Amino acid sequence: MNAYVHGYDEQENQRLQDQAGTLVDLLHSDTAYPAGSRVLEAGCGTGAQTVTLARNSPGARFVSVDVSAASLAEARRRMDAAALDNVELRQADIFALPFAPRPFDHVFVCFVLEHLPRPLEALAVLKQLLRPGGSITVIEGDHGSAYFHPDSEAARRAIQCQVELQRAAGGNALIGRQVYPLMLAAGFQEVRVSPRMVYVDGSRPGFIEGFTRKTFTAMIEGVRVAAIRAGKATPEAFDEGIRALYRTAEADGVFCYTFFKGVGRR
Amino acid sequence: MNAYVHGYDEQENQRLQDQAGTLVDLLHSDTAYPAGSRVLEAGCGTGAQTVTLARNSPGARFVSVDVSAASLAEARRRMDAAALDNVELRQADIFALPFAPRPFDHVFVCFVLEHLPRPLEALAVLKQLLRPGGSITVIEGDHGSAYFHPDSEAARRAIQCQVELQRAAGGNALIGRQVYPLMLAAGFQEVRVSPRMVYVDGSRPGFIEGFTRKTFTAMIEGVRVAAIRAGKATPEAFDEGIRALYRTAEADGVFCYTFFKGVGRR
Repeated sequence: MNAYVHGYDEQENQRLQDQAGTLVDLLHSDTAYPAGSRVLEAGCGTGAQTVTLARNSPGARFVSVDVSAASLAEARRRMDAAALDNVELRQADIFALPFAPRPFDHVFVCFVLEHLPRPLEALAVLKQLLRPGGSITVIEGDHGSAYFHPDSEAARRAIQCQVELQRAAGGNALIGRQVYPLMLAAGFQEVRVSPRMVYVDGSRPGFIEGFTRKTFTAMIEGVRVAAIRAGKATPEAFDEGIRALYRTAEADGVFCYTFFKGVGRR
Repeated sequence: MNAYVHGYDEQENQRLQDQAGTLVDLLHSDTAYPAGSRVLEAGCGTGAQTVTLARNSPGARFVSVDVSAASLAEARRRMDAAALDNVELRQADIFALPFAPRPFDHVFVCFVLEHLPRPLEALAVLKQLLRPGGSITVIEGDHGSAYFHPDSEAARRAIQCQVELQRAAGGNALIGRQVYPLMLAAGFQEVRVSPRMVYVDGSRPGFIEGFTRKTFTAMIEGVRVAAIRAGKATPEAFDEGIRALYRTAEADGVFCYTFFKGVGRR
Protein backbone atom coordinates (compact mmCIF):
# COMPACT_ATOMS: atom_id res chain seq x y z
CA MET A 1 0.00 0.00 0.00
CA ASN A 2 3.02 2.23 0.40
CA ALA A 3 4.47 1.67 -3.08
CA TYR A 4 2.63 4.67 -4.46
CA VAL A 5 -0.09 6.52 -2.63
CA HIS A 6 -2.18 9.45 -3.71
CA GLY A 7 -0.03 12.36 -2.59
CA TYR A 8 -1.54 14.72 -0.11
CA ASP A 9 -1.36 18.20 -1.49
CA GLU A 10 -4.06 20.74 -2.08
CA GLN A 11 -4.48 20.21 -5.81
CA GLU A 12 -4.63 16.43 -5.60
CA ASN A 13 -6.94 16.65 -2.65
CA GLN A 14 -9.27 18.95 -4.57
CA ARG A 15 -9.27 16.53 -7.47
CA LEU A 16 -10.15 13.56 -5.30
CA GLN A 17 -12.90 15.60 -3.69
CA ASP A 18 -14.35 16.59 -7.08
CA GLN A 19 -14.10 12.98 -8.19
CA ALA A 20 -15.86 11.66 -5.11
CA GLY A 21 -18.64 14.24 -5.45
CA THR A 22 -19.34 13.42 -9.08
CA LEU A 23 -19.05 9.66 -8.99
CA VAL A 24 -20.54 8.98 -5.65
CA ASP A 25 -23.91 7.74 -6.86
CA LEU A 26 -22.50 5.76 -9.74
CA LEU A 27 -19.99 3.90 -7.59
CA HIS A 28 -21.45 3.71 -4.11
CA SER A 29 -25.24 4.00 -4.11
CA ASP A 30 -25.64 0.20 -4.00
CA THR A 31 -23.23 -0.29 -1.09
CA ALA A 32 -24.88 -0.34 2.34
CA TYR A 33 -23.94 -2.42 5.38
CA PRO A 34 -26.36 -3.69 8.06
CA ALA A 35 -26.49 -2.04 11.47
CA GLY A 36 -23.99 -3.52 13.85
CA SER A 37 -21.62 -4.81 11.19
CA ARG A 38 -17.90 -4.03 11.36
CA VAL A 39 -16.38 -2.78 8.12
CA LEU A 40 -12.71 -2.38 7.24
CA GLU A 41 -11.96 0.32 4.68
CA ALA A 42 -8.50 -0.49 3.43
CA GLY A 43 -6.65 2.53 2.08
CA CYS A 44 -9.07 5.33 2.91
CA GLY A 45 -6.74 8.12 1.83
CA THR A 46 -8.18 11.53 2.70
CA GLY A 47 -11.60 10.01 3.37
CA ALA A 48 -13.17 11.04 0.06
CA GLN A 49 -15.17 7.79 -0.10
CA THR A 50 -15.42 7.31 3.66
CA VAL A 51 -17.98 10.07 4.19
CA THR A 52 -20.34 8.48 1.66
CA LEU A 53 -19.76 4.96 2.98
CA ALA A 54 -20.43 5.96 6.58
CA ARG A 55 -23.48 8.05 5.69
CA ASN A 56 -25.02 5.23 3.63
CA SER A 57 -24.57 2.79 6.52
CA PRO A 58 -25.16 4.83 9.69
CA GLY A 59 -25.56 1.72 11.86
CA ALA A 60 -22.31 0.08 10.73
CA ARG A 61 -18.95 0.76 12.37
CA PHE A 62 -16.03 1.54 10.07
CA VAL A 63 -12.34 1.09 10.70
CA SER A 64 -10.69 3.16 7.95
CA VAL A 65 -6.98 2.56 7.59
CA ASP A 66 -4.33 4.39 5.62
CA VAL A 67 -0.57 4.44 5.68
CA SER A 68 -0.26 8.22 5.30
CA ALA A 69 -0.50 10.42 8.40
CA ALA A 70 -1.11 13.53 6.29
CA SER A 71 -3.99 11.90 4.44
CA LEU A 72 -5.48 10.69 7.71
CA ALA A 73 -5.31 14.18 9.21
CA GLU A 74 -7.41 15.42 6.32
CA ALA A 75 -9.73 12.43 6.65
CA ARG A 76 -10.19 13.24 10.34
CA ARG A 77 -11.09 16.84 9.53
CA ARG A 78 -13.65 15.54 7.05
CA MET A 79 -15.25 13.10 9.48
CA ASP A 80 -15.55 15.93 12.02
CA ALA A 81 -17.04 18.32 9.46
CA ALA A 82 -19.58 15.66 8.48
CA ALA A 83 -20.29 14.93 12.16
CA LEU A 84 -19.76 11.21 11.58
CA ASP A 85 -19.25 9.17 14.73
CA ASN A 86 -19.16 5.68 13.21
CA VAL A 87 -15.68 5.88 11.69
CA GLU A 88 -12.47 4.97 13.48
CA LEU A 89 -9.40 6.19 11.60
CA ARG A 90 -6.17 4.23 12.03
CA GLN A 91 -2.73 4.90 10.60
CA ALA A 92 -1.31 1.57 9.52
CA ASP A 93 0.06 -0.49 6.68
CA ILE A 94 -2.73 -2.93 5.86
CA PHE A 95 -0.13 -5.61 5.27
CA ALA A 96 1.40 -5.21 8.73
CA LEU A 97 -1.43 -4.17 11.01
CA PRO A 98 -0.24 -3.09 14.45
CA PHE A 99 -3.36 -4.56 16.00
CA ALA A 100 -4.63 -8.13 15.73
CA PRO A 101 -8.21 -7.45 14.75
CA ARG A 102 -11.02 -9.87 15.18
CA PRO A 103 -12.31 -10.61 11.70
CA PHE A 104 -14.37 -7.94 9.97
CA ASP A 105 -17.84 -8.55 8.58
CA HIS A 106 -17.02 -6.62 5.43
CA VAL A 107 -13.99 -5.18 3.64
CA PHE A 108 -14.12 -2.22 1.26
CA VAL A 109 -11.20 -1.30 -0.99
CA CYS A 110 -11.45 1.45 -3.60
CA PHE A 111 -8.72 2.86 -5.90
CA VAL A 112 -6.03 0.97 -3.98
CA LEU A 113 -5.12 -2.20 -5.92
CA GLU A 114 -4.12 -0.04 -8.91
CA HIS A 115 -1.13 1.18 -6.89
CA LEU A 116 0.12 -2.19 -5.67
CA PRO A 117 2.83 -4.33 -7.25
CA ARG A 118 1.12 -7.52 -6.03
CA PRO A 119 -2.63 -6.91 -5.98
CA LEU A 120 -3.39 -10.62 -5.70
CA GLU A 121 -1.38 -10.92 -2.48
CA ALA A 122 -3.14 -7.82 -1.18
CA LEU A 123 -6.52 -9.46 -1.75
CA ALA A 124 -5.28 -12.60 0.03
CA VAL A 125 -4.28 -10.51 3.07
CA LEU A 126 -7.65 -8.75 3.08
CA LYS A 127 -9.39 -12.12 2.88
CA GLN A 128 -7.66 -13.18 6.09
CA LEU A 129 -9.13 -10.12 7.83
CA LEU A 130 -12.65 -11.16 6.84
CA ARG A 131 -14.90 -13.61 8.67
CA PRO A 132 -16.12 -16.61 6.66
CA GLY A 133 -19.20 -15.48 4.76
CA GLY A 134 -18.20 -11.83 5.03
CA SER A 135 -18.15 -9.66 1.90
CA ILE A 136 -15.46 -7.76 0.05
CA THR A 137 -16.12 -4.84 -2.30
CA VAL A 138 -13.41 -3.82 -4.76
CA ILE A 139 -13.60 -0.73 -6.99
CA GLU A 140 -10.98 0.16 -9.61
CA GLY A 141 -10.79 2.26 -12.76
CA ASP A 142 -9.18 1.27 -16.07
CA HIS A 143 -7.46 3.88 -18.21
CA GLY A 144 -7.73 1.58 -21.22
CA SER A 145 -11.48 2.21 -21.05
CA ALA A 146 -10.98 5.89 -21.93
CA TYR A 147 -12.01 6.90 -25.44
CA PHE A 148 -13.46 10.10 -26.73
CA HIS A 149 -14.58 12.35 -29.54
CA PRO A 150 -12.84 14.05 -31.21
CA ASP A 151 -10.39 11.17 -31.15
CA SER A 152 -6.76 12.27 -30.76
CA GLU A 153 -3.51 10.37 -31.01
CA ALA A 154 -1.85 13.04 -28.85
CA ALA A 155 -4.44 12.59 -26.11
CA ARG A 156 -4.02 8.83 -26.22
CA ARG A 157 -0.26 9.25 -25.90
CA ALA A 158 -0.63 11.57 -22.89
CA ILE A 159 -2.82 8.96 -21.17
CA GLN A 160 -0.24 6.33 -22.05
CA CYS A 161 2.38 8.44 -20.21
CA GLN A 162 0.32 8.11 -17.03
CA VAL A 163 -0.14 4.36 -17.57
CA GLU A 164 3.61 3.86 -18.02
CA LEU A 165 4.55 6.01 -15.02
CA GLN A 166 2.11 4.13 -12.82
CA ARG A 167 3.55 0.84 -14.08
CA ALA A 168 7.09 2.07 -13.37
CA ALA A 169 5.95 2.87 -9.82
CA GLY A 170 4.73 -0.71 -9.45
CA GLY A 171 1.05 -0.09 -10.15
CA ASN A 172 -1.39 -0.89 -12.94
CA ALA A 173 -3.68 1.79 -14.36
CA LEU A 174 -5.46 -0.87 -16.46
CA ILE A 175 -6.45 -3.04 -13.49
CA GLY A 176 -10.22 -2.47 -13.70
CA ARG A 177 -10.75 -5.22 -16.28
CA GLN A 178 -8.87 -7.60 -13.97
CA VAL A 179 -11.08 -7.17 -10.91
CA TYR A 180 -13.01 -10.35 -11.72
CA PRO A 181 -10.05 -12.67 -12.37
CA LEU A 182 -8.14 -11.24 -9.38
CA MET A 183 -11.03 -11.79 -6.96
CA LEU A 184 -11.49 -15.28 -8.37
CA ALA A 185 -7.79 -16.09 -8.04
CA ALA A 186 -7.82 -14.82 -4.44
CA GLY A 187 -10.44 -17.46 -3.70
CA PHE A 188 -13.51 -15.30 -3.14
CA GLN A 189 -16.91 -16.90 -3.76
CA GLU A 190 -19.99 -15.64 -5.60
CA VAL A 191 -17.92 -12.95 -7.34
CA ARG A 192 -20.01 -10.49 -9.34
CA VAL A 193 -18.42 -7.58 -11.17
CA SER A 194 -20.44 -4.74 -12.63
CA PRO A 195 -18.99 -2.03 -14.83
CA ARG A 196 -19.83 1.58 -14.00
CA MET A 197 -19.43 3.51 -17.18
CA VAL A 198 -19.13 7.27 -17.10
CA TYR A 199 -20.54 8.56 -20.38
CA VAL A 200 -20.16 12.30 -20.84
CA ASP A 201 -21.64 14.35 -23.67
CA GLY A 202 -22.94 17.90 -24.05
CA SER A 203 -26.21 17.01 -22.35
CA ARG A 204 -24.41 16.23 -19.07
CA PRO A 205 -22.68 19.45 -17.98
CA GLY A 206 -22.13 18.21 -14.43
CA PHE A 207 -20.03 15.31 -15.67
CA ILE A 208 -18.20 17.48 -18.21
CA GLU A 209 -16.96 19.67 -15.40
CA GLY A 210 -16.80 17.10 -12.61
CA PHE A 211 -15.39 14.17 -14.53
CA THR A 212 -13.87 14.98 -17.94
CA ARG A 213 -12.19 18.19 -16.82
CA LYS A 214 -11.61 18.05 -13.10
CA THR A 215 -11.12 14.33 -12.61
CA PHE A 216 -9.71 12.56 -15.63
CA THR A 217 -7.93 15.33 -17.52
CA ALA A 218 -6.68 16.89 -14.27
CA MET A 219 -5.19 13.53 -13.28
CA ILE A 220 -3.38 13.14 -16.62
CA GLU A 221 -2.24 16.76 -16.44
CA GLY A 222 -0.86 15.96 -12.99
CA VAL A 223 1.87 13.73 -14.43
CA ARG A 224 3.14 16.39 -16.86
CA VAL A 225 6.45 17.07 -15.10
CA ALA A 226 7.11 13.40 -14.37
CA ALA A 227 6.31 12.38 -17.95
CA ILE A 228 8.61 14.99 -19.44
CA ARG A 229 11.36 14.25 -16.92
CA ALA A 230 11.12 10.53 -17.73
CA GLY A 231 11.44 11.31 -21.43
CA LYS A 232 8.00 9.87 -22.21
CA ALA A 233 6.82 13.03 -23.97
CA THR A 234 8.08 16.41 -25.08
CA PRO A 235 6.38 19.36 -23.39
CA GLU A 236 4.76 20.24 -26.72
CA ALA A 237 3.41 16.75 -27.38
CA PHE A 238 2.11 16.35 -23.83
CA ASP A 239 0.42 19.75 -23.84
CA GLU A 240 -1.18 18.96 -27.20
CA GLY A 241 -2.62 15.82 -25.66
CA ILE A 242 -4.02 17.74 -22.69
CA ARG A 243 -5.59 20.33 -25.00
CA ALA A 244 -7.18 17.48 -26.97
CA LEU A 245 -8.61 16.02 -23.75
CA TYR A 246 -10.11 19.39 -22.80
CA ARG A 247 -11.48 19.61 -26.35
CA THR A 248 -13.60 16.51 -25.64
CA ALA A 249 -15.32 18.56 -22.91
CA GLU A 250 -16.79 21.00 -25.46
CA ALA A 251 -20.50 20.89 -26.26
CA ASP A 252 -20.04 18.49 -29.20
CA GLY A 253 -17.42 16.33 -27.48
CA VAL A 254 -17.86 12.91 -25.89
CA PHE A 255 -15.83 11.21 -23.18
CA CYS A 256 -16.12 7.62 -21.94
CA TYR A 257 -14.51 5.92 -18.95
CA THR A 258 -15.38 2.81 -16.97
CA PHE A 259 -14.92 1.78 -13.35
CA PHE A 260 -15.34 -1.83 -12.24
CA LYS A 261 -17.02 -2.77 -8.98
CA GLY A 262 -16.64 -6.32 -7.72
CA VAL A 263 -18.37 -7.94 -4.77
CA GLY A 264 -17.54 -11.37 -3.39
CA ARG A 265 -17.65 -13.45 -0.19
CA ARG A 266 -15.03 -15.25 1.83
CA MET B 1 -26.75 2.72 -47.73
CA ASN B 2 -25.28 0.78 -50.61
CA ALA B 3 -21.64 1.70 -50.00
CA TYR B 4 -21.05 -1.39 -47.89
CA VAL B 5 -23.78 -3.66 -46.64
CA HIS B 6 -23.64 -6.74 -44.49
CA GLY B 7 -23.17 -9.50 -47.02
CA TYR B 8 -25.86 -12.09 -47.23
CA ASP B 9 -24.30 -15.46 -46.80
CA GLU B 10 -25.00 -18.21 -44.34
CA GLN B 11 -22.12 -17.54 -41.96
CA GLU B 12 -22.70 -13.79 -41.74
CA ASN B 13 -26.40 -14.38 -41.38
CA GLN B 14 -25.81 -16.78 -38.51
CA ARG B 15 -23.57 -14.22 -36.86
CA LEU B 16 -26.14 -11.46 -37.12
CA GLN B 17 -28.76 -13.82 -35.73
CA ASP B 18 -26.56 -14.77 -32.76
CA GLN B 19 -25.84 -11.10 -32.20
CA ALA B 20 -29.49 -10.13 -32.28
CA GLY B 21 -30.41 -12.93 -29.90
CA THR B 22 -27.82 -11.99 -27.31
CA LEU B 23 -28.10 -8.25 -27.41
CA VAL B 24 -31.78 -7.88 -27.88
CA ASP B 25 -32.65 -6.91 -24.31
CA LEU B 26 -29.64 -4.67 -23.86
CA LEU B 27 -30.33 -2.70 -27.03
CA HIS B 28 -34.06 -2.81 -27.64
CA SER B 29 -36.01 -3.47 -24.45
CA ASP B 30 -36.67 0.25 -23.98
CA THR B 31 -37.91 0.85 -27.53
CA ALA B 32 -41.68 0.56 -27.95
CA TYR B 33 -43.94 2.56 -30.26
CA PRO B 34 -47.59 3.46 -29.58
CA ALA B 35 -50.38 1.62 -31.36
CA GLY B 36 -51.23 3.22 -34.65
CA SER B 37 -47.84 4.86 -35.19
CA ARG B 38 -45.96 4.43 -38.46
CA VAL B 39 -42.29 3.50 -38.09
CA LEU B 40 -39.59 3.49 -40.74
CA GLU B 41 -36.77 1.00 -40.13
CA ALA B 42 -33.97 2.22 -42.37
CA GLY B 43 -31.58 -0.56 -43.37
CA CYS B 44 -33.29 -3.61 -41.91
CA GLY B 45 -30.88 -6.13 -43.48
CA THR B 46 -32.06 -9.67 -42.88
CA GLY B 47 -34.56 -8.52 -40.28
CA ALA B 48 -32.51 -9.54 -37.24
CA GLN B 49 -33.73 -6.48 -35.28
CA THR B 50 -37.07 -6.22 -37.06
CA VAL B 51 -38.62 -9.23 -35.33
CA THR B 52 -37.89 -7.74 -31.91
CA LEU B 53 -39.01 -4.26 -32.91
CA ALA B 54 -42.31 -5.49 -34.33
CA ARG B 55 -42.98 -7.80 -31.37
CA ASN B 56 -42.31 -5.05 -28.83
CA SER B 57 -44.74 -2.72 -30.62
CA PRO B 58 -47.53 -4.97 -31.91
CA GLY B 59 -49.86 -2.03 -32.56
CA ALA B 60 -47.36 -0.04 -34.62
CA ARG B 61 -46.91 -0.46 -38.36
CA PHE B 62 -43.35 -0.85 -39.65
CA VAL B 63 -41.97 -0.10 -43.08
CA SER B 64 -38.59 -1.86 -43.12
CA VAL B 65 -36.39 -0.90 -46.03
CA ASP B 66 -33.15 -2.38 -47.31
CA VAL B 67 -31.21 -2.06 -50.53
CA SER B 68 -30.37 -5.77 -50.78
CA ALA B 69 -32.92 -8.13 -52.36
CA ALA B 70 -31.17 -11.17 -50.88
CA SER B 71 -31.26 -9.73 -47.37
CA LEU B 72 -34.94 -8.84 -47.80
CA ALA B 73 -35.80 -12.36 -48.93
CA GLU B 74 -34.34 -13.66 -45.67
CA ALA B 75 -36.12 -10.91 -43.73
CA ARG B 76 -39.42 -11.94 -45.36
CA ARG B 77 -38.86 -15.59 -44.36
CA ARG B 78 -38.24 -14.39 -40.79
CA MET B 79 -41.37 -12.24 -40.63
CA ASP B 80 -43.41 -15.21 -41.87
CA ALA B 81 -41.80 -17.60 -39.37
CA ALA B 82 -42.56 -15.14 -36.56
CA ALA B 83 -46.11 -14.68 -37.89
CA LEU B 84 -45.68 -10.90 -37.83
CA ASP B 85 -48.25 -8.99 -39.84
CA ASN B 86 -47.27 -5.44 -38.89
CA VAL B 87 -44.13 -5.21 -41.05
CA GLU B 88 -44.04 -4.11 -44.67
CA LEU B 89 -40.71 -4.95 -46.31
CA ARG B 90 -39.54 -2.71 -49.16
CA GLN B 91 -36.47 -2.97 -51.33
CA ALA B 92 -35.10 0.53 -51.78
CA ASP B 93 -32.18 2.84 -51.31
CA ILE B 94 -33.20 5.04 -48.38
CA PHE B 95 -31.58 8.00 -50.12
CA ALA B 96 -33.66 7.57 -53.27
CA LEU B 97 -36.97 6.16 -52.13
CA PRO B 98 -39.15 5.03 -55.03
CA PHE B 99 -42.25 6.14 -53.15
CA ALA B 100 -43.01 9.57 -51.75
CA PRO B 101 -44.02 8.61 -48.23
CA ARG B 102 -46.12 10.72 -45.97
CA PRO B 103 -43.92 11.50 -42.99
CA PHE B 104 -43.30 8.72 -40.49
CA ASP B 105 -44.01 9.07 -36.78
CA HIS B 106 -40.73 7.38 -35.90
CA VAL B 107 -37.50 6.35 -37.58
CA PHE B 108 -35.29 3.51 -36.37
CA VAL B 109 -31.76 2.98 -37.68
CA CYS B 110 -29.43 0.35 -36.21
CA PHE B 111 -25.91 -0.68 -37.35
CA VAL B 112 -26.28 1.34 -40.55
CA LEU B 113 -24.46 4.68 -40.12
CA GLU B 114 -21.21 2.78 -39.48
CA HIS B 115 -21.24 1.75 -43.16
CA LEU B 116 -21.93 5.15 -44.69
CA PRO B 117 -19.35 7.62 -46.03
CA ARG B 118 -21.59 10.57 -45.09
CA PRO B 119 -23.54 9.61 -41.96
CA LEU B 120 -24.54 13.22 -41.28
CA GLU B 121 -26.21 13.53 -44.68
CA ALA B 122 -27.96 10.21 -44.04
CA LEU B 123 -29.40 11.57 -40.81
CA ALA B 124 -30.54 14.72 -42.62
CA VAL B 125 -32.39 12.58 -45.19
CA LEU B 126 -34.01 10.51 -42.44
CA LYS B 127 -35.06 13.71 -40.68
CA GLN B 128 -36.96 14.76 -43.80
CA LEU B 129 -38.91 11.50 -43.66
CA LEU B 130 -40.04 12.26 -40.10
CA ARG B 131 -43.01 14.37 -39.04
CA PRO B 132 -42.22 17.34 -36.76
CA GLY B 133 -42.14 16.02 -33.21
CA GLY B 134 -41.50 12.46 -34.43
CA SER B 135 -38.65 10.49 -32.90
CA ILE B 136 -35.49 8.95 -34.30
CA THR B 137 -33.57 6.11 -32.65
CA VAL B 138 -29.97 5.46 -33.67
CA ILE B 139 -27.90 2.49 -32.47
CA GLU B 140 -24.22 1.97 -33.34
CA GLY B 141 -21.27 0.06 -31.95
CA ASP B 142 -17.73 1.37 -31.48
CA HIS B 143 -14.76 -0.98 -31.93
CA GLY B 144 -12.58 1.46 -29.98
CA SER B 145 -14.64 0.47 -26.94
CA ALA B 146 -13.29 -3.09 -27.08
CA TYR B 147 -10.77 -4.01 -24.41
CA PHE B 148 -10.15 -7.28 -22.66
CA HIS B 149 -8.15 -9.47 -20.34
CA PRO B 150 -5.67 -10.92 -21.00
CA ASP B 151 -4.69 -7.83 -22.96
CA SER B 152 -3.02 -8.59 -26.29
CA GLU B 153 -1.25 -6.40 -28.80
CA ALA B 154 -1.97 -9.01 -31.51
CA ALA B 155 -5.69 -8.93 -30.73
CA ARG B 156 -5.73 -5.15 -30.83
CA ARG B 157 -3.97 -5.25 -34.22
CA ALA B 158 -6.51 -7.74 -35.62
CA ILE B 159 -9.35 -5.43 -34.54
CA GLN B 160 -7.48 -2.53 -36.12
CA CYS B 161 -7.48 -4.46 -39.42
CA GLN B 162 -11.28 -4.50 -39.35
CA VAL B 163 -11.39 -0.78 -38.48
CA GLU B 164 -9.09 0.09 -41.39
CA LEU B 165 -10.93 -2.13 -43.88
CA GLN B 166 -14.26 -0.58 -42.90
CA ARG B 167 -12.71 2.87 -43.27
CA ALA B 168 -11.35 1.96 -46.71
CA ALA B 169 -14.88 0.88 -47.68
CA GLY B 170 -16.16 4.32 -46.66
CA GLY B 171 -17.45 3.39 -43.21
CA ASN B 172 -16.45 4.08 -39.63
CA ALA B 173 -16.22 1.28 -37.07
CA LEU B 174 -15.62 3.87 -34.32
CA ILE B 175 -18.85 5.77 -34.94
CA GLY B 176 -20.62 4.86 -31.68
CA ARG B 177 -18.98 7.68 -29.71
CA GLN B 178 -20.16 10.11 -32.40
CA VAL B 179 -23.86 9.32 -32.19
CA TYR B 180 -24.50 12.34 -29.96
CA PRO B 181 -22.60 14.96 -32.00
CA LEU B 182 -23.99 13.56 -35.27
CA MET B 183 -27.60 13.72 -34.09
CA LEU B 184 -26.98 17.21 -32.76
CA ALA B 185 -25.39 18.36 -36.03
CA ALA B 186 -28.33 16.93 -37.99
CA GLY B 187 -30.59 19.25 -36.02
CA PHE B 188 -32.47 16.78 -33.84
CA GLN B 189 -33.90 18.07 -30.55
CA GLU B 190 -33.83 16.62 -27.04
CA VAL B 191 -31.03 14.26 -28.02
CA ARG B 192 -30.21 11.71 -25.31
CA VAL B 193 -27.56 9.06 -25.82
CA SER B 194 -27.12 6.12 -23.49
CA PRO B 195 -24.23 3.67 -23.69
CA ARG B 196 -25.06 -0.04 -23.62
CA MET B 197 -21.97 -1.75 -22.35
CA VAL B 198 -21.54 -5.47 -22.85
CA TYR B 199 -19.39 -6.71 -19.98
CA VAL B 200 -18.45 -10.37 -20.24
CA ASP B 201 -16.64 -12.40 -17.60
CA GLY B 202 -16.66 -16.04 -16.48
CA SER B 203 -19.91 -15.55 -14.57
CA ARG B 204 -21.80 -14.78 -17.81
CA PRO B 205 -21.52 -17.88 -20.01
CA GLY B 206 -24.35 -16.78 -22.31
CA PHE B 207 -22.47 -13.64 -23.27
CA ILE B 208 -19.14 -15.49 -23.57
CA GLU B 209 -20.68 -17.71 -26.23
CA GLY B 210 -23.17 -15.28 -27.73
CA PHE B 211 -21.09 -12.13 -27.73
CA THR B 212 -17.34 -12.60 -27.24
CA ARG B 213 -17.09 -15.70 -29.43
CA LYS B 214 -19.94 -15.71 -31.89
CA THR B 215 -20.46 -11.99 -32.38
CA PHE B 216 -17.31 -9.95 -31.87
CA THR B 217 -14.52 -12.43 -32.50
CA ALA B 218 -16.47 -14.04 -35.37
CA MET B 219 -16.83 -10.62 -36.97
CA ILE B 220 -13.10 -9.86 -36.72
CA GLU B 221 -12.31 -13.38 -37.97
CA GLY B 222 -14.58 -12.61 -40.93
CA VAL B 223 -12.14 -10.07 -42.35
CA ARG B 224 -9.16 -12.48 -42.27
CA VAL B 225 -8.84 -12.94 -46.03
CA ALA B 226 -9.46 -9.26 -46.79
CA ALA B 227 -6.95 -8.14 -44.15
CA ILE B 228 -4.23 -10.44 -45.44
CA ARG B 229 -4.99 -9.59 -49.06
CA ALA B 230 -4.76 -5.86 -48.23
CA GLY B 231 -1.41 -6.42 -46.57
CA LYS B 232 -2.68 -5.27 -43.19
CA ALA B 233 -1.52 -8.42 -41.43
CA THR B 234 0.39 -11.63 -42.07
CA PRO B 235 -1.67 -14.80 -41.68
CA GLU B 236 0.38 -15.69 -38.59
CA ALA B 237 -0.10 -12.29 -36.93
CA PHE B 238 -3.81 -12.20 -37.68
CA ASP B 239 -4.38 -15.73 -36.42
CA GLU B 240 -2.45 -14.93 -33.25
CA GLY B 241 -4.81 -12.00 -32.69
CA ILE B 242 -7.86 -14.21 -33.19
CA ARG B 243 -6.51 -16.80 -30.77
CA ALA B 244 -5.94 -14.02 -28.23
CA LEU B 245 -9.55 -12.87 -28.65
CA TYR B 246 -10.84 -16.40 -28.06
CA ARG B 247 -8.54 -16.57 -25.04
CA THR B 248 -10.54 -13.70 -23.45
CA ALA B 249 -13.56 -16.05 -23.56
CA GLU B 250 -11.97 -18.47 -21.09
CA ALA B 251 -13.25 -18.69 -17.52
CA ASP B 252 -10.74 -16.10 -16.21
CA GLY B 253 -11.01 -13.78 -19.22
CA VAL B 254 -12.90 -10.50 -19.53
CA PHE B 255 -14.29 -8.76 -22.61
CA CYS B 256 -15.83 -5.28 -22.83
CA TYR B 257 -17.66 -3.60 -25.70
CA THR B 258 -20.09 -0.69 -25.85
CA PHE B 259 -22.99 0.19 -28.12
CA PHE B 260 -24.49 3.67 -28.16
CA LYS B 261 -28.21 4.30 -28.43
CA GLY B 262 -29.42 7.79 -29.23
CA VAL B 263 -32.97 9.10 -29.26
CA GLY B 264 -34.01 12.52 -30.52
CA ARG B 265 -36.95 14.41 -32.00
CA ARG B 266 -37.45 16.35 -35.18
